[in-house]
Amino acid sequence: MAWRRHLHGRPELGFEEHETAAFVAERLRALGLAVTTGVARTGVVAVLPAAKAARGAVLLRADMDALPVQEVEGRAYGSEIPGRMHACGHDGHMAMLLGAAALLVEERERLDRDVVFCFQPGEEGFGGAEAMIKAGVLRDHGVAEAYGLHLWSPYPVGTIQVRPGPTMAAQDEFEATVHGKGGHGALPHAAIDPIVAAAQAVVALQAVVARHVDPVEPAVVTVGSLHAGTAANIIPDTAVLRGTLRSFDETVRKTLREGARRVLDHISAAHGCRCDFVLHEGYPAVVNDRDAAERVRKHAAEVVGETRVIEPPPVAAAEDFAYFLQKVPGAFAFIGAGNAERGITAPHHAAAFDIDETALPIGAELLARIALG
Amino acid sequence: MAWRRHLHGRPELGFEEHETAAFVAERLRALGLAVTTGVARTGVVAVLPAAKAARGAVLLRADMDALPVQEVEGRAYGSEIPGRMHACGHDGHMAMLLGAAALLVEERERLDRDVVFCFQPGEEGFGGAEAMIKAGVLRDHGVAEAYGLHLWSPYPVGTIQVRPGPTMAAQDEFEATVHGKGGHGALPHAAIDPIVAAAQAVVALQAVVARHVDPVEPAVVTVGSLHAGTAANIIPDTAVLRGTLRSFDETVRKTLREGARRVLDHISAAHGCRCDFVLHEGYPAVVNDRDAAERVRKHAAEVVGETRVIEPPPVAAAEDFAYFLQKVPGAFAFIGAGNAERGITAPHHAAAFDIDETALPIGAELLARIALG
Amino acid sequence: MAWRRHLHGRPELGFEEHETAAFVAERLRALGLAVTTGVARTGVVAVLPAAKAARGAVLLRADMDALPVQEVEGRAYGSEIPGRMHACGHDGHMAMLLGAAALLVEERERLDRDVVFCFQPGEEGFGGAEAMIKAGVLRDHGVAEAYGLHLWSPYPVGTIQVRPGPTMAAQDEFEATVHGKGGHGALPHAAIDPIVAAAQAVVALQAVVARHVDPVEPAVVTVGSLHAGTAANIIPDTAVLRGTLRSFDETVRKTLREGARRVLDHISAAHGCRCDFVLHEGYPAVVNDRDAAERVRKHAAEVVGETRVIEPPPVAAAEDFAYFLQKVPGAFAFIGAGNAERGITAPHHAAAFDIDETALPIGAELLARIALG
Amino acid sequence: MAWRRHLHGRPELGFEEHETAAFVAERLRALGLAVTTGVARTGVVAVLPAAKAARGAVLLRADMDALPVQEVEGRAYGSEIPGRMHACGHDGHMAMLLGAAALLVEERERLDRDVVFCFQPGEEGFGGAEAMIKAGVLRDHGVAEAYGLHLWSPYPVGTIQVRPGPTMAAQDEFEATVHGKGGHGALPHAAIDPIVAAAQAVVALQAVVARHVDPVEPAVVTVGSLHAGTAANIIPDTAVLRGTLRSFDETVRKTLREGARRVLDHISAAHGCRCDFVLHEGYPAVVNDRDAAERVRKHAAEVVGETRVIEPPPVAAAEDFAYFLQKVPGAFAFIGAGNAERGITAPHHAAAFDIDETALPIGAELLARIALG
Repeated sequence: MAWRRHLHGRPELGFEEHETAAFVAERLRALGLAVTTGVARTGVVAVLPAAKAARGAVLLRADMDALPVQEVEGRAYGSEIPGRMHACGHDGHMAMLLGAAALLVEERERLDRDVVFCFQPGEEGFGGAEAMIKAGVLRDHGVAEAYGLHLWSPYPVGTIQVRPGPTMAAQDEFEATVHGKGGHGALPHAAIDPIVAAAQAVVALQAVVARHVDPVEPAVVTVGSLHAGTAANIIPDTAVLRGTLRSFDETVRKTLREGARRVLDHISAAHGCRCDFVLHEGYPAVVNDRDAAERVRKHAAEVVGETRVIEPPPVAAAEDFAYFLQKVPGAFAFIGAGNAERGITAPHHAAAFDIDETALPIGAELLARIALG
Repeated sequence: MAWRRHLHGRPELGFEEHETAAFVAERLRALGLAVTTGVARTGVVAVLPAAKAARGAVLLRADMDALPVQEVEGRAYGSEIPGRMHACGHDGHMAMLLGAAALLVEERERLDRDVVFCFQPGEEGFGGAEAMIKAGVLRDHGVAEAYGLHLWSPYPVGTIQVRPGPTMAAQDEFEATVHGKGGHGALPHAAIDPIVAAAQAVVALQAVVARHVDPVEPAVVTVGSLHAGTAANIIPDTAVLRGTLRSFDETVRKTLREGARRVLDHISAAHGCRCDFVLHEGYPAVVNDRDAAERVRKHAAEVVGETRVIEPPPVAAAEDFAYFLQKVPGAFAFIGAGNAERGITAPHHAAAFDIDETALPIGAELLARIALG
Repeated sequence: MAWRRHLHGRPELGFEEHETAAFVAERLRALGLAVTTGVARTGVVAVLPAAKAARGAVLLRADMDALPVQEVEGRAYGSEIPGRMHACGHDGHMAMLLGAAALLVEERERLDRDVVFCFQPGEEGFGGAEAMIKAGVLRDHGVAEAYGLHLWSPYPVGTIQVRPGPTMAAQDEFEATVHGKGGHGALPHAAIDPIVAAAQAVVALQAVVARHVDPVEPAVVTVGSLHAGTAANIIPDTAVLRGTLRSFDETVRKTLREGARRVLDHISAAHGCRCDFVLHEGYPAVVNDRDAAERVRKHAAEVVGETRVIEPPPVAAAEDFAYFLQKVPGAFAFIGAGNAERGITAPHHAAAFDIDETALPIGAELLARIALG
Repeated sequence: MAWRRHLHGRPELGFEEHETAAFVAERLRALGLAVTTGVARTGVVAVLPAAKAARGAVLLRADMDALPVQEVEGRAYGSEIPGRMHACGHDGHMAMLLGAAALLVEERERLDRDVVFCFQPGEEGFGGAEAMIKAGVLRDHGVAEAYGLHLWSPYPVGTIQVRPGPTMAAQDEFEATVHGKGGHGALPHAAIDPIVAAAQAVVALQAVVARHVDPVEPAVVTVGSLHAGTAANIIPDTAVLRGTLRSFDETVRKTLREGARRVLDHISAAHGCRCDFVLHEGYPAVVNDRDAAERVRKHAAEVVGETRVIEPPPVAAAEDFAYFLQKVPGAFAFIGAGNAERGITAPHHAAAFDIDETALPIGAELLARIALG
């Protein structure tokens, strides 16, 4: 908890996790582990060699980056950096993995495989996992399986969620610049208004999900930011939208990509504007190996009891842990971190996000059991 | 011209026209007029009594304030104050009114009504005209008519523009904050998306003009800025719109105000959001008295010839001279001040704005003829 | 009044005015006039020769067709035909012109020009005026001027409205069929929904007026009908929109035509649909001759008094009388027919539309004075 | 097959299944069963008592009503009644259940529970299942489980489909009348346009699914019909929308109902209109009990082989068998009835709908095995 609180106070954005990495590396070294820093710029990798290696290594992963969110005021362990916040729980992920490392160092005699502790940078849209894989984290250490956890405030603390198969969404992002022609707000006919075009495009995008996707297939199109203009009475030249596309199925993913582009292009044209549409291909879907997921379920039951292990529906959020699971089998699971009685109900990425810290030892123990199992 | 150049060099912002007022008062006193300073803080009023007053007084008005604009470099008579510029021509307005005062002092014997020379502060959004009226400039001097001029670079020097009825627009601004509930872009159901609501409101606002206003009445609703969100995959808490409402008729003005508020409120509610709508009431429309406008047209023809007096379409910009015309009949006219051959084409409020100074004696003569007519 | 009530009870649509024409022809023959029927199918023309013709003939025109509107119930002289109603006042137009014919027969000795009484079919979108001109009504009778009246409920009975120049709008109509692909309402992804596309197009059309037309130029885009689908749970193949475009200026007219087509095409495409857009070019603007309008104004003052003759703003409705004014000088004027005290306030084309019948002798007298003047 | 063909020839609509019920009752009595007719007007219930009842009764259900569809011509066993057709396969459902009754009478010694053969009226929108429950079909016979089958032409004959959990959608319908104020299309300000309001509401409804429902929960909002206006240039008084809401989860169902109402109300108000929103509550979702579904899967494998039992995605269509599953556990399964080689591909409810009759003994055997299992 102290580790998590320390990290919570000093949030750093993707690939800028310098202080964070230094802190993590220091803790790992204190445990006697061989630590490599600067992996994929700010990543940290530590290896705990098995007493007697009988099989390929297991990789346990935490992500390190924070978000550009302004935390609500008045928290004892709140972010000390304006406009930055660990609003997704990565501070807790690091604390849990450090905890697991401490536990496993104790249990090293029982280990029959090397454990790779992987602290990756830039999960929030930066593809840090892919960068770590390219930097050799799987290959160099003979990794045969990979596991990751996510603290999850929608479920109550004391529960663990894991499911076989599709678990988290494929994610693409787009940036669309609607080009009109600026002018005086009182003379709209002498300008071409990009705000009206962009606004109607946002509305039309809702129909891509509501009309073009099979209702039984999950799909999300969110416009997360829309910016245009500097004054009430000046029509600006452009409006800029940024959005995210989520899906669990490649056909749906294609429908969303094509639909977003089609809507932006044609709605812009309907209003006499032109649109530059750029698609940033994002993370694929997290698809858990069925056997690995079953093993996680078994260990989870050892930690919290059979009845508190839940098979959740797929989650529409994206996770670059997907890249690890494209290379080796493994699973990604969720540690319940909400607590309605204590008012811990805010969704991830919100300014009021929080976790019940009693979730941290649960996650640490689960990781340790997975490595030993 | 010398007066205008002096004033051009020493621009002062609204209600800070101390040096300007002192200069004007000195010139007026030099003409032998009774001068009152400090009216509505920095306003200056001088009265030329009629030889034999046969009717109520006529008020001639100039505005004194400059703009927070950095003038282009290299001008002989450029602004000496960084970031301040007479970019709307008020320096010329003062020079013209001083010129008219000089002419009328000469012609005093022919005057059959008192002339009130009104130099008002703060026209650029400060409502100085209203402040002068509250300070008694109309009541105290028995003003029965009011006239004002604006140098106007879109028309060539040597022309004068005047029209009966609606001449310059009423202008209101609004700021609307659509409150949703922030959250993860992949979990829209756990958030309330203010961007979709704001976007649809922008679209719906088009119907206020297109459906709720009499098609023969000019009306404009422009959303000039729309800002929401910080990232592609985070649903923000709020979206903020700023816009301007223009009209020439009080009924239409009311329709726009009520329509904008109604649309923002209900479209927000349709999407589960709430809207804070703030209206910044601006200047009313400048509506010229038909008879007064006809008299100005006649005098203008005496000054520049019948063919160089133009009836322009209504101008969508706003002017606080409107307040005078709400109290007494009168008219507001434009003195052509552009000269394409000499490169004087920059729009008002631009850093490169300039006037052809040969417009100044035209305006001075017109004002004098109006007072005498 | 009896004539108007008779006609009100038996409304007939454009080019189907068989009973109406027979009634009118009978009344004209009873006055001793030479009557031609079947002009342009259902039109009626009668000529009153001048005692001594000193100049070209004057044409006085009434229109005869009713509308597909279901009149409100309970009226003493209500429409006897379900779904048909004289909801625009053409019944009164005919009564006024018959009245003028009766008056002029009495005053024939004073006439110095032939009077052509022209009862045209199909004013409501059928272009009956153009058909009458093609049938020779101007050429065959040596018509040098043309005048027409419209009963006008927005103004109180006892007033007359006439203005020089642009008086009524140019009108075009469009029909747009949005083609999607029908299917089960529960399986939207297997269909292409034309209703969502058509709906968004209706919304986007508002921006054509609100953003693309100069605010000081009147313009209207109305979608008057939208039809799609047969059941709540079946996605239809198509949605059909019909609308009208009104303007007073050829540039604006072009903006509306191009804008409507652009919006329908691109909004359809944005949703994966295709649009068939058909423009029905309608009536041009009614532009009164300045001298003719001034003469009407003078005669109107003789009828109702100087202060009750009003110069109205241009009216956004369309009138095929425009075709007459493209061929010969003349004017189109309005006879106030509203009466708030008697509850006669419903707009033209509404089911509750009515006129104050005391307007009828005013119109008859004005037409007679015009012919004699 | 003979039974099915007989029933196919004499289709009767919901709650009018008099001949149908008589035929079914006769067949059941011929098997020696105790038959009750006139249950919930036209329903038929027969009971086969167990040799030795060891547990609660099992109910097997068929539906009896036909559709107002005109069957394609030229079929050997086609409908003899114009405009009526068994276009959903209920004729086959009855035949399968009669077949199961014949099989179970033979196997009565092996039965350890009573079997209730339930032939219900009015499945196609009449809620016959609910009426049967109210009439006591579950309570009076001590029913502990309920099963039903649907012939399903989208899957090939020889296959069986069954899934645990949500299987068929909850369905509600709405009708919304947007009230504006009619008027002339050229004078929008004198009217209140219901078409613009209705159109924007259709667009806004897309956001109910796209923004307010958990992306992993299936949901559909379809506006299947939208009708307004009679002419291009008349603004109508009202616009009428009809739509369907589909979901598999009661929370989502509530979100759709509330969302549709909220959107219609507030979008109407945003445009100055008022909306009458009427919700027609439809059938709840068919949610199979997990254990019951597993048993059906096992028996299905006994009938057609393991590889021909398919777990289908949830079906967005609705079924009033849902009411039985709200009261007792059980399952609803599909019997593949299509045959592309024989041209049997038309969708349910189509005029060309047909089944491959070799599906009938498969269904009969499955029902019998379920009862025995």
